[in-house]
Amino acid sequence: MNAHTPPPRTLPAALLEALAQLLGERFSTARAVREQHGRDESLYDPVAPDAVAFARSQEEIVAVLRLCHEHRVPVIPYGSGSSLEGHLLAVEGGISLDVSQMDQVLAFQPEDMSISVQPGISRKALNEYLRASGLFFPIDPGADASIGGMCATRASGTNAVRYGTMRENVLGLTAILANGEVIKTGSLAKKSAAGYDLARLFIGSEGTLGVISEITLKLHPQPEAVSAAVCSFPSVHAAVQTVIQTIQLGIPIARAELIDTLTTQALNSYFKLGLSEAPTLFFEFHGSEAGLAEQVAMVKALVAENGGSDLQWATAQEDRNRLWSARHNALFAILQLKPGCRASSTDVCVPLSRLADCVVATDEDVRQSNIPAPIFGHVGDGNFHVCLLLDPNSAEEREEAERLNRRIVERALAVGGTCTGEHGIGLHKIDYLVQEHGEPAIEVMRSIKRALDPHNLMNPGKIFRMN
Amino acid sequence: MNAHTPPPRTLPAALLEALAQLLGERFSTARAVREQHGRDESLYDPVAPDAVAFARSQEEIVAVLRLCHEHRVPVIPYGSGSSLEGHLLAVEGGISLDVSQMDQVLAFQPEDMSISVQPGISRKALNEYLRASGLFFPIDPGADASIGGMCATRASGTNAVRYGTMRENVLGLTAILANGEVIKTGSLAKKSAAGYDLARLFIGSEGTLGVISEITLKLHPQPEAVSAAVCSFPSVHAAVQTVIQTIQLGIPIARAELIDTLTTQALNSYFKLGLSEAPTLFFEFHGSEAGLAEQVAMVKALVAENGGSDLQWATAQEDRNRLWSARHNALFAILQLKPGCRASSTDVCVPLSRLADCVVATDEDVRQSNIPAPIFGHVGDGNFHVCLLLDPNSAEEREEAERLNRRIVERALAVGGTCTGEHGIGLHKIDYLVQEHGEPAIEVMRSIKRALDPHNLMNPGKIFRMN
Repeated sequence: MNAHTPPPRTLPAALLEALAQLLGERFSTARAVREQHGRDESLYDPVAPDAVAFARSQEEIVAVLRLCHEHRVPVIPYGSGSSLEGHLLAVEGGISLDVSQMDQVLAFQPEDMSISVQPGISRKALNEYLRASGLFFPIDPGADASIGGMCATRASGTNAVRYGTMRENVLGLTAILANGEVIKTGSLAKKSAAGYDLARLFIGSEGTLGVISEITLKLHPQPEAVSAAVCSFPSVHAAVQTVIQTIQLGIPIARAELIDTLTTQALNSYFKLGLSEAPTLFFEFHGSEAGLAEQVAMVKALVAENGGSDLQWATAQEDRNRLWSARHNALFAILQLKPGCRASSTDVCVPLSRLADCVVATDEDVRQSNIPAPIFGHVGDGNFHVCLLLDPNSAEEREEAERLNRRIVERALAVGGTCTGEHGIGLHKIDYLVQEHGEPAIEVMRSIKRALDPHNLMNPGKIFRMN
Repeated sequence: MNAHTPPPRTLPAALLEALAQLLGERFSTARAVREQHGRDESLYDPVAPDAVAFARSQEEIVAVLRLCHEHRVPVIPYGSGSSLEGHLLAVEGGISLDVSQMDQVLAFQPEDMSISVQPGISRKALNEYLRASGLFFPIDPGADASIGGMCATRASGTNAVRYGTMRENVLGLTAILANGEVIKTGSLAKKSAAGYDLARLFIGSEGTLGVISEITLKLHPQPEAVSAAVCSFPSVHAAVQTVIQTIQLGIPIARAELIDTLTTQALNSYFKLGLSEAPTLFFEFHGSEAGLAEQVAMVKALVAENGGSDLQWATAQEDRNRLWSARHNALFAILQLKPGCRASSTDVCVPLSRLADCVVATDEDVRQSNIPAPIFGHVGDGNFHVCLLLDPNSAEEREEAERLNRRIVERALAVGGTCTGEHGIGLHKIDYLVQEHGEPAIEVMRSIKRALDPHNLMNPGKIFRMN
């Protein structure tokens, strides 16, 4: 899959010099460093930036942006490199601004259940920091992504069904615009009606409006009791129906993950999980001891009604960790299904009532294709992933994967859903975004981009074309 | 309190004629109709628009906006007229566009727990519609506001502590820009990472970016069991501490409302509630029978620890209705405290850990003032209201009310809070918004406004000055 190849460009000598002076060894034009920053977890061939700048403070971000603004050189913010739709490719050249060394906690307000962090801290490091506090941060995309990147792509994950996505869990953030201007949004208060919701505008903007330099997150109390369970079903439809009914009854499940048969096979063979090879749900329950018992009883009844197996329990922390670690690392297991393959991972989100039909129809599509494609996802939100396994050297397989992807997205849009629940647009879903929202809405997005970044310097070429 | 008086202006004859032809009797320049549309629930003297247009369809909104755009005449969207900070005053003249007749349900998706409505439907009418469905819409500002207006001001209310605000409960909306362009945002899916979050941009934009013509709301299951309780405390501090501890323990209370002593007196005398005349909390619990019992037991223990009275229960629906109706209509009771007075209602929201201090300090301020000012609010969110009761003909009292308001807001900002939790900026908090976010963030808001509404026609003069 080729992204557009940028015209070869040379950075102005004055800029190179100024950045080298500012950052010393933390400014690099070495090929290996550039190539590592011109890729993500998508299938795109890397497009390296012209240089990489590693920032260690907000002041350095401001300085880099001012310099690049002066020289009209694009800037691509870089966190952990785990995005999935080509977000990080330097399709118009420029500087990759790596903030992964900005990984500190700035202020922790346990009584307010909030924490202010730098953008480079990873979700796992954050929860490690919080471990003894009685609080945690629930959003968990599969990768150990950076919090800044999770803001930029409006990430969610397995817990979103109960705790919401990044949209609901950021109290405020600081962003640096293309010209180096520092913008503070939100506050430490839980809610506000004060002016335009600039925090929500930056969340999901994929680096196209500015660099996020500080984030204040909402935290949640660690549940008193946690337990996880696995059960298998005679069909994907029965599994999905169970989750739909769980949600409709208002049962506050913390996680409800669907794993299709192919995925169970992959997990069994890679992680030795010993799952039944059938459509399977992974559940997690959070609450008080009594609340948990009640949730479990209700879900058990729904599982039985839908022909599911007995629930297999993982109550001890290490069993739960093993289960969820397998789920989060499903991609590695799945890649073993087809030696030498690479995965094109797509995600859509549909209204709950249409989820079973969409998953079943996708399963049909996949069966009729020569591309193996495990299906799994956060079905409590109506969100599912299809992992298309293809030989990266086969044009035919790449084309077939694109065809399947198109069918999955167009089916989601036809039922009122969205072309991406949590991966974002990047380069890959630009046309689907237009299909979803219509040209006038995209033009509004462009006009906002022009207003905040008139020279189109911030991660140019992503989310939409500027025309 | 005078808003700027607009220059007297005459609408172009061609516009008057075109609007009259489009809307017939639903276009009015009658003085009474104009004056009714140039006021809200704030203390500002009314500033009437030049005419009022009543729309009955999205097509009519588009037609009105196109005509006004062509003639460069401002448009002020109007729902139910219950805003509190001067949002509806025609400070730059123009047309008030009243959408209250657009009050229909467009599509109800019970399995998806979502509903699509026109902007003029009121929150009570919506819940009346939903009564038999097992679902409800929780957001409840005191007034029976329109859903469109609630989007425009990012409203919340007593239930926000559990269910969130308008920000968290809108899946998508349709907005018409100043030039008549129709923008669709969001989808029917529960989450999305597809492009800029335009829905969140319109939520809280107070009519300055366009007219909201359709909204898809997230609904919630009606709880299996509901019960409400009242208890009084030896001090405001003890009451607030009880709520803070409740939240910190993760107890999912549905409502936690503080009523100060003065407010209990007002409610007793107007609604014959028979409350102890002391700082009081109104609680509401939602859940399963067992879940409820557990929540109640935990809250009871916290109440006792903080020296609160025994909980008085309102379990029957009519008792709960009586209690919450009194709470929602507290303003009417409060107005009786000072014959001939009017109320200037301010609201701030602070981090939970600073709430007790802020409320107590505000209470001190009020005691030292000659303005009676009951304090009450949604303390589970850190949000509280102060209702300044003043003689509208006394310049001195108006000035004293402004002084108190300034102290309340500045104290909130000093602890990292926001100048408004749910009322919005309107005309009254324009300077506080700058104080809260800083000039660069306001300039970003202005640049977005310019991008979407280059001629400054949509509710001009609100939220910020355009310079």
